[in-house]
Amino acid sequence: MYGTIRIERNPSCKTKPGQEENLGFGRHFTDHMFIMDYEEGQGWHDPRIIPYGPLSHDPAAMVFHYGQAVFEGLKAFRTDKEDIVLFRPDQNAKRLNRSCERLSMPALDEEFVVHAIQSLVRLDAEWVPRKEGSSLYIRPFVMATEAGLGVRASSRYSFIIIMSPVGAYYEEGLQPVNILVEGHFARAVQGGTGNAKVAGNYAASLNAQAVAKENNCAQVLWLDAIEKKYLEEVGSMNVFFKINGEVVTPSLSGSILEGITRKSIIHLLNEWGIPVKEQKIAIDDIVAAYENGTLEEAFGTGTAAVVSPIGSLLWQGKSMVINQGNIGELVQRLYDTITDIQFGRTSDTHNWLVSC
Amino acid sequence: MYGTIRIERNPSCKTKPGQEENLGFGRHFTDHMFIMDYEEGQGWHDPRIIPYGPLSHDPAAMVFHYGQAVFEGLKAFRTDKEDIVLFRPDQNAKRLNRSCERLSMPALDEEFVVHAIQSLVRLDAEWVPRKEGSSLYIRPFVMATEAGLGVRASSRYSFIIIMSPVGAYYEEGLQPVNILVEGHFARAVQGGTGNAKVAGNYAASLNAQAVAKENNCAQVLWLDAIEKKYLEEVGSMNVFFKINGEVVTPSLSGSILEGITRKSIIHLLNEWGIPVKEQKIAIDDIVAAYENGTLEEAFGTGTAAVVSPIGSLLWQGKSMVINQGNIGELVQRLYDTITDIQFGRTSDTHNWLVSC
Repeated sequence: MYGTIRIERNPSCKTKPGQEENLGFGRHFTDHMFIMDYEEGQGWHDPRIIPYGPLSHDPAAMVFHYGQAVFEGLKAFRTDKEDIVLFRPDQNAKRLNRSCERLSMPALDEEFVVHAIQSLVRLDAEWVPRKEGSSLYIRPFVMATEAGLGVRASSRYSFIIIMSPVGAYYEEGLQPVNILVEGHFARAVQGGTGNAKVAGNYAASLNAQAVAKENNCAQVLWLDAIEKKYLEEVGSMNVFFKINGEVVTPSLSGSILEGITRKSIIHLLNEWGIPVKEQKIAIDDIVAAYENGTLEEAFGTGTAAVVSPIGSLLWQGKSMVINQGNIGELVQRLYDTITDIQFGRTSDTHNWLVSC
Repeated sequence: MYGTIRIERNPSCKTKPGQEENLGFGRHFTDHMFIMDYEEGQGWHDPRIIPYGPLSHDPAAMVFHYGQAVFEGLKAFRTDKEDIVLFRPDQNAKRLNRSCERLSMPALDEEFVVHAIQSLVRLDAEWVPRKEGSSLYIRPFVMATEAGLGVRASSRYSFIIIMSPVGAYYEEGLQPVNILVEGHFARAVQGGTGNAKVAGNYAASLNAQAVAKENNCAQVLWLDAIEKKYLEEVGSMNVFFKINGEVVTPSLSGSILEGITRKSIIHLLNEWGIPVKEQKIAIDDIVAAYENGTLEEAFGTGTAAVVSPIGSLLWQGKSMVINQGNIGELVQRLYDTITDIQFGRTSDTHNWLVSC
């Protein structure tokens, strides 16, 4: 598919950040990147790995004007045995195609996408950090590159993969966060782009994020745009609640991103015999559970943090403290289980890992 | 403000398209472009006009990943007296700032924006075409340029202006178009970005546009995302209806773009003593007016076409032909009046024109 990946090695590799350096998120980039181009009539062609460096585009390139851009995010982990593994990359490739479809962009062969990621990670393997909890964040993205101002689907695209070594999301173990329930701004609506990983969704969320920070909250919990009543996502994560021994998470309504961590967590809960339901959840249901003492745990899920315990929810000026602001038993168990799989500390019975 | 604009002339100017060439829209670009950069702490700085050419950005530049990009569109016209004029550029500068605010991007001095446009047009004045109905399309845009993958507002931006000579939108006079009323996809919702000129809005609209084409329609008429009942915009234009001698247009609900042509048309109608109302308009109201024979005219409005008569509306598989598919008297009068002002064929009593 698309031919062999041509490799042009970087003659002047960068100095890697030191083991003790605070890597942050998406600040350092590896020595190489993957690129493949698309042109109408020709299809995807010329897959290549080249030195990481600037992209040159006409100022009329459509990505700058009409936002035809989608992305994915996943991680490569270094196990104790020095293997390098990816966590469910096939799922990212699938979702990338769903996002492309939503923005009238051409599909990619999913197996090839995984192959391209593997090839790039293999070449820059020394960039996968060794420090406890750290990993190599992988960012595949597709964007419109045709130069032209007519509002229509571009006839040219680039599929690019860049990678960034990232530190442990939690330097000192899980940390509960405060979350603002957002009643003003809307993230997405049925028929919109909320269930695709589309660049514009993220720009649209920045104002609400700023309001959250002003309220000493780490993220917002989005309500549905129509009734401002039903829960959608928290920041850029999916959200789960444990109420009276049962776990609930918003069902995929068409405006919620289908998280890969979300899917994995539902799988684990089913395996463990813990009741889990995907359903419409009203903010009023959460308030009621809080008030009658059955709201036991709440957490966000996503690639960056795996799970993020919610210590409190701020809604209409009132703070609901969950589990006395402590880390719940379930969220800890989920975190340990998934990270143990990712770092090869337990056996991968689900075949979620793919070697590089 | 921001200092003097530095000018670096293009040593190798392009051959301009011939007078008889079909210019199309946004396919040819002039010899120069304007750029100014923003950096947190430093603000907007280094305004310059340089040869039109590729932009170089880190592959992690935020515009590629999180869609922080907004734009404007306006035109320069060559009058019969060889003056070159802009149509209400102050309004574009204002709206650019509103769009920036929605995406957490830094504001620009509005007078400076107009000054930058004037300076660039003056330098590339020979690119303003002379052929009847043609003009120079001007595209100011702002985008996030910081290299980083954390989801937050960028700390760096570029404000850029590029220009493209464009042909008459109607080569042979106004042409009524068929419009599909879109009941599935959503353009925008209250609390979203629909009232800002945000790149991502346009990518999100491409799928619906493709469905319109399949139905032999030029554009879609968007309904509100919540009830799928109230009219919003048509394609990337505002929409007006003349019903029983009165003109109605959807009120600015928070999800509709505040068009400058829309505003100018409302102004003219008021001046002419033609009743015009901004209000919620249900698609059922339009169907009722169609059925009782009071739906007299319908048209879209925007910078590209000025006005675009709607010959028929396709809704739930049924085509409603408006004014027997002919150009209405009012739409023709509006078109003539505005284009006469723009090309200096009538006196600019509203002070809408700004010289370059």
